[in-house]
Amino acid sequence: MAATVAEDYAALAERLREVTALSAIGGVLGWDEQVMMPAGAASSRAAQQSALAGVVFQLETVPELGALLAKLTTDGKTPLPALVDPLEAAVVRDAARGYRKRTALSKELAQREARLSSEGYQAWVAARKASDFAAFAPVLTQWLSLTKEKCAAIDPGKPVYDVALDAFERGMTSARLDEIFSQTRDGLVPLLAAVRSRGTAPDDSWLAGSFDVDKQAALCKSIAVDMGFDLERGRLDVSVHPFTGGAGPSDVRMTTRFKENDMFEGITGAIHETGHSLYEQGRLGGAFEGLPVSDALSMGVHESQSLLWERMVGLSRPFAAYLLPRLHAAFPGALPAEKTAEDLYAAINKVRESSLIRVEADELTYPLHVILRYELEAALLRGEIAVEDLPALWDAKMQEYLGVTPANAAQGVLQDVHWSAGALGYFPTYLLGAMMAVQVFQAAARALPTLDADIAAGRFGGLKTWLNEKLHSKGSLYPSADELMIAVTGEPLRPAVYLAHMKVREMRCLSDCADTCYSGQVFGAVQALMHLLK
Amino acid sequence: MAATVAEDYAALAERLREVTALSAIGGVLGWDEQVMMPAGAASSRAAQQSALAGVVFQLETVPELGALLAKLTTDGKTPLPALVDPLEAAVVRDAARGYRKRTALSKELAQREARLSSEGYQAWVAARKASDFAAFAPVLTQWLSLTKEKCAAIDPGKPVYDVALDAFERGMTSARLDEIFSQTRDGLVPLLAAVRSRGTAPDDSWLAGSFDVDKQAALCKSIAVDMGFDLERGRLDVSVHPFTGGAGPSDVRMTTRFKENDMFEGITGAIHETGHSLYEQGRLGGAFEGLPVSDALSMGVHESQSLLWERMVGLSRPFAAYLLPRLHAAFPGALPAEKTAEDLYAAINKVRESSLIRVEADELTYPLHVILRYELEAALLRGEIAVEDLPALWDAKMQEYLGVTPANAAQGVLQDVHWSAGALGYFPTYLLGAMMAVQVFQAAARALPTLDADIAAGRFGGLKTWLNEKLHSKGSLYPSADELMIAVTGEPLRPAVYLAHMKVREMRCLSDCADTCYSGQVFGAVQALMHLLK
Repeated sequence: MAATVAEDYAALAERLREVTALSAIGGVLGWDEQVMMPAGAASSRAAQQSALAGVVFQLETVPELGALLAKLTTDGKTPLPALVDPLEAAVVRDAARGYRKRTALSKELAQREARLSSEGYQAWVAARKASDFAAFAPVLTQWLSLTKEKCAAIDPGKPVYDVALDAFERGMTSARLDEIFSQTRDGLVPLLAAVRSRGTAPDDSWLAGSFDVDKQAALCKSIAVDMGFDLERGRLDVSVHPFTGGAGPSDVRMTTRFKENDMFEGITGAIHETGHSLYEQGRLGGAFEGLPVSDALSMGVHESQSLLWERMVGLSRPFAAYLLPRLHAAFPGALPAEKTAEDLYAAINKVRESSLIRVEADELTYPLHVILRYELEAALLRGEIAVEDLPALWDAKMQEYLGVTPANAAQGVLQDVHWSAGALGYFPTYLLGAMMAVQVFQAAARALPTLDADIAAGRFGGLKTWLNEKLHSKGSLYPSADELMIAVTGEPLRPAVYLAHMKVREMRCLSDCADTCYSGQVFGAVQALMHLLK
Repeated sequence: MAATVAEDYAALAERLREVTALSAIGGVLGWDEQVMMPAGAASSRAAQQSALAGVVFQLETVPELGALLAKLTTDGKTPLPALVDPLEAAVVRDAARGYRKRTALSKELAQREARLSSEGYQAWVAARKASDFAAFAPVLTQWLSLTKEKCAAIDPGKPVYDVALDAFERGMTSARLDEIFSQTRDGLVPLLAAVRSRGTAPDDSWLAGSFDVDKQAALCKSIAVDMGFDLERGRLDVSVHPFTGGAGPSDVRMTTRFKENDMFEGITGAIHETGHSLYEQGRLGGAFEGLPVSDALSMGVHESQSLLWERMVGLSRPFAAYLLPRLHAAFPGALPAEKTAEDLYAAINKVRESSLIRVEADELTYPLHVILRYELEAALLRGEIAVEDLPALWDAKMQEYLGVTPANAAQGVLQDVHWSAGALGYFPTYLLGAMMAVQVFQAAARALPTLDADIAAGRFGGLKTWLNEKLHSKGSLYPSADELMIAVTGEPLRPAVYLAHMKVREMRCLSDCADTCYSGQVFGAVQALMHLLK
């Protein structure tokens, strides 16, 4: 590229890296708040986060940044042709996108948003406690109005829901979501009906017991390290709500929690967060460290990495073979010696009781919880339904998709925190992540012929490196998850892949039953899916 | 005050609180770096700290702040008479002082300083390793020149050393230091000569053993809590170099370290850091939280609080009575049952081997280590001595004051890190802190007639509250440590008080010996001072 373009690009990169460094500090503070901070520091910490956010926002919207971006783009959006390196072009594209979004909002609107976030949370907590939707409705009404105002300011030419969605799942549209989710819903509902009341539950009672949490923590740490988590560039701690955060690829902080009487809460959580962490640690470094192209593409893609490890790896037969001897080593004599890896595989895939609650749902019903929320929030933002009708519509959809009806608003429309914080457009990322996890894992399995044997032997390096190369290091190079999927798997996100996987799991379970004959005691992972909703 | 003055003051306070909040973040990051951060994050953390420092400096030197200060002072220094509240006047006075200091320095000089700090440290490490003063001399020469330049820019009317000193010990001058330190030196040197070769060492062999570090940590935490450390507004962790840091009064992070074979390293360190922490947690809140008048007055005053608890309380007879049963409870059966509190008192006050090294020196010789450094660094900055003559002058003073001569530069002039970082004017604060600790504790003992009995019973609340009220909450209200000493103790810092304490300790020890007759086995705390320099 021309000398002056190179200089402008270097100046842009320096500004962006400064913002990244300051934002990363926010990540350390957020982690500290959850894991380390004494309770009495809450209000001074809020003042610190607020001061930092103010500084970051000021640097992100400073006119000098806009001037640089104007010089490096043809129209404030498209990088100059002289930026021939696609990664550098993506840096300019994403920096311009961020600048446009941030400068579109007035300070007054940003302050109103911050206030409503705080008030909305309080109102939601109280309304859920009282199971009183009417007490929460005004908050939701305000969020809908504020979101419309915000989206119109950012991109008046696009549907409101598309602009809202873009904050969490960039490049996704409601048209595309309608396509993906309707196919998924239409495939899952009959599948659910088919599996309902079939089969019997596998035995997982032998996994019950009391397990020292320090030993659980040591075991989970060793699993994370086996998976490839780099302790030189991260930490594993305990917090009330497990999360992955920290300050970028060289300082990834993940947390998990342990229950003395349920070791799989800790193990599953650790595998899930390690999936997120491997993405974070695998982000692009070198010349692109701290620049937007190295950022994770979207919430959905991030969730695909945690779910790939949690479900596709962690609930697999070979993983059970890897895990069983480690359980015996961690808790000598605590588990019956005669149990096999196949027993473990069955037990950890046992389907929980059918639930009205999203966070307690399992693999087969979870998508329908998400689709229900997507349909309702999109209809609200399009003005097709009214806030006051929401509880009745919620209950009707629950009955239609899942065959159950909530007894009250607390177990229904008020169960999730998201809307109270104005996170409209967030829910779809959960299901997109689950779908991408299947499609990406299948591509990995095609590329890595010894994957099953490797997993059984605890050799996760091949899979991790493949994900590093194909996905993690691509960051935000591609402008949407669909384009990333094409690059990684050869095709855009395809609901049929996900649905086929669900069906195959069921088919496999039936054939497994025929093949192995564990006297009705042992069931494969998705065999257990048949016992849903009893 | 007039309406417009009140508005300007409020605007100033808002700006200052923003700077405090951002600086507090630096405190959390610094703690995290020592205690939590994975090693691989070092360079990204350096970028974060650098970005944060840049933002803070920018906010501290922004012209709008200068304009506000111009409106709130008569001459850029003196607060308007309309600011009748002395605390508000002190806020304006200190904010103006900080603004003058920071804007006096060019960006070029600040960058040169940052570079020399980093290069200087590397040069010092190499020079000390090779015991080669000539390899370090160019760094020191550059620091002298840079310090002169900096001090002339900040306050051209004052002696260079006074300006340098003010950064660490505000309001102190070299004339006053000459007075304090020469009296101290002239009193200590003959005292040392008098005690040398007298008496025999107390027995502390019964305290030897192996002590589980987790139990040591629990014991130290309980001592800190007994002293008044508030765990709702602070933490106690482990780090290689113990320190007290964090993010202000509501989030005080102290660390200590433990040795399995020496439990008193941990206990002494915990008491010392708790002394610092009680000062931090006791700082002024409410309307003055986050404003400069709530800041600690100086390094010397801060050190006075750690040393008051470490030496005046922690090495006292009543504290030994408090501690002994707690040692037995923490380590059942590990200590001989027949040992008394008096035995413990003697043992913990045993004087270590005489040392060439400052950080290994004890209460009686430590002051002379400090005075030697003060005399040399002040003479260097005044141009009275040359850098190349420093090693010889060092060795001569060591012989004159302490009767020993270093074998090489590593054990002599190169032993401390301070000069490599340009911290000229720092050393005096160590001794000033030790002297203030004595004077403040004596004032507390006069005010609290049951102090000894309270300490023996673990009731530290009276002393803590007295320190909170008299000293901690005064922050930077007084413009110098001498004025604080007048307010707290009724007189300025008086070397005679400190010297008398040293002599009284010796006298008491002699009379104790006569009174108690422990068969030559038991010695009082400062009895042990007589065994110095054997």
